[in-house]
Amino acid sequence: MPIINCDPYQVYINEDWNSFRNLLSRKDYSKIGVLVDENTALYCLPILQKYIHEFNFQIIEIKSGEHFKNLETCKEIWSHMLENGFDRHSLLINLGGGVIGDMGGFCARTFMRGMDFIQVPTTLLSQVDASVGGKLGIDFKDFKNLIGVIDDPKAVWIDDQFLKTLPARQLRSGFAEIIKHALIQNSQMWDELKQIENLENIEWSDIIYRSVQIKKEVVVQDKYEGGLRKILNFGHTLGHAIESENLNSEDYLLHGEAISIGMITESYISMKMTGLSKGEYQEIKKYILKIYPHFQNALDNEESILEKLIKDKKNKQGLLNFSLINKIGESVFDIVPEKSFIKEALLDYYKV
Amino acid sequence: MPIINCDPYQVYINEDWNSFRNLLSRKDYSKIGVLVDENTALYCLPILQKYIHEFNFQIIEIKSGEHFKNLETCKEIWSHMLENGFDRHSLLINLGGGVIGDMGGFCARTFMRGMDFIQVPTTLLSQVDASVGGKLGIDFKDFKNLIGVIDDPKAVWIDDQFLKTLPARQLRSGFAEIIKHALIQNSQMWDELKQIENLENIEWSDIIYRSVQIKKEVVVQDKYEGGLRKILNFGHTLGHAIESENLNSEDYLLHGEAISIGMITESYISMKMTGLSKGEYQEIKKYILKIYPHFQNALDNEESILEKLIKDKKNKQGLLNFSLINKIGESVFDIVPEKSFIKEALLDYYKV
Repeated sequence: MPIINCDPYQVYINEDWNSFRNLLSRKDYSKIGVLVDENTALYCLPILQKYIHEFNFQIIEIKSGEHFKNLETCKEIWSHMLENGFDRHSLLINLGGGVIGDMGGFCARTFMRGMDFIQVPTTLLSQVDASVGGKLGIDFKDFKNLIGVIDDPKAVWIDDQFLKTLPARQLRSGFAEIIKHALIQNSQMWDELKQIENLENIEWSDIIYRSVQIKKEVVVQDKYEGGLRKILNFGHTLGHAIESENLNSEDYLLHGEAISIGMITESYISMKMTGLSKGEYQEIKKYILKIYPHFQNALDNEESILEKLIKDKKNKQGLLNFSLINKIGESVFDIVPEKSFIKEALLDYYKV
Repeated sequence: MPIINCDPYQVYINEDWNSFRNLLSRKDYSKIGVLVDENTALYCLPILQKYIHEFNFQIIEIKSGEHFKNLETCKEIWSHMLENGFDRHSLLINLGGGVIGDMGGFCARTFMRGMDFIQVPTTLLSQVDASVGGKLGIDFKDFKNLIGVIDDPKAVWIDDQFLKTLPARQLRSGFAEIIKHALIQNSQMWDELKQIENLENIEWSDIIYRSVQIKKEVVVQDKYEGGLRKILNFGHTLGHAIESENLNSEDYLLHGEAISIGMITESYISMKMTGLSKGEYQEIKKYILKIYPHFQNALDNEESILEKLIKDKKNKQGLLNFSLINKIGESVFDIVPEKSFIKEALLDYYKV
């Protein structure tokens, strides 16, 4: 795959690991740390170790899951680095999914006012989403990503062999962001994606490459989300509310699963407000439901979902701000829909 | 005073408060907060309120002092902002000394990945030092400024009427950084400063202006302290060690007081290593001791001071890295002195 230049850093996809070793030798790092959770320690670290065994590095292990993406875990990471002689000339390699990347990046950028870090995303979701864009941070008081910074890694290293370690459900969750990238920016990619009926035995590297390219094109034009970058929120305004609504239920949804509902319902609103044709709406709904069959009960508590929508931090001064599509491959942002359309959209999700 | 341009922000010194009001109206801020401690709430807030009473703003009060410059206090600040509807389109005004500016700036830059903040430094030390350079952060596990970022405020607003609220000892502490700026960069300013025998009734604005100018010239050339910026550490390598050595004693030293000892002792090392003449060394020592008479017992535990030196985060891989002067107004960095010179310097401080 060609290297994607996100100046000042590069995204490497299935590149020769010699290049990775060169990244580690490029500077005279005082220490190298590898941040893992119990899952990536077990499944991904052995792969990484194979390639960098000649380097001296320390493993920093934290507990996996969004539930630990908080200040307490940051304190553990900072303490480990402090006690083991890390300084601003050290490097942290974040080996894992979005939580590891977001939190590890945040800890690195704030330790002694900033040390280097490299993202090695190991889930499909983090490879196509969190890997580019520089959003780093942690949750605070039940609010996702409330504390954080926007800053760049030294490099993003993607290798699809890590995906073989993923449960099928996780893989499918990541696929939702790939669908999103196609829907908002690239109708041709959508036409190809919709041929995919089964996520097993897919050659991921090309799909990842094109998906990261789309995200990168958007992000370089609007790093701090003043405008254009908002289109990446397509499916996420309702999606986030649905995700947090179901967070503590037994049938909790993975991020991409919630986004699959978000994309269908926000396509409905797009049909009502921004000219998406009925035909394209039905095409989107049909394909997404093929990959993500209806989640029963996910929308049961409509009032609570609407409440969460309003609390979402992306909504300035309580206004509901949606990013929608005009047609497949073209998007608009800063759309304030009527509440009735939102309710209709939620109802329509279950209609077949 | 002319406005100092630190692109992308400006430093205003004794400017008409209409300009301050313009800063607040320039954007459509969703909320405005003013961060104070119990001292600035009492002495400085009434001054600020006089000028901005027509704005809606909320007061966020924290406890004063370095002891509270930590994550627990950050949590209080973030929680206050969260519970009161602040978002990334809000503004925080940091009204106070270095602790308020460093911590308030850090909290603002990390809240929802970054909201605007304006520094209104109210002590002489923070006006000439922390106000420029963008170092933001908090202490962690007994290490000063271990967690933080480097980032710019929207503006720095300096008004010397706040200095009238300062105890004389605090004022004198801030004066040490002014002496430092002259010693490392401007011999003419040193010649003028050394005429000052008494810090009462001084017209501060011009001195502040020139001091901020010096710091700014250094910082714009090397924002992330890769090289030149290190010269600002003159007096601070030993100074910090001496400050933390005396932190919990009854005769604890204020920052500038410790730096006064640091500047004398590091001038001694400069004489031994980087060609500072004996005459200039004696001139420096004599003047600094006039303003800051000997602190008895401050250097009693020489071994402990040397240990703290080695732990200082500025010293990469345990190497002692000093910033010294060749002559008054000219400085060098990355000098590794022999331990014997450090010991001699500490001994020489008390010799008259």
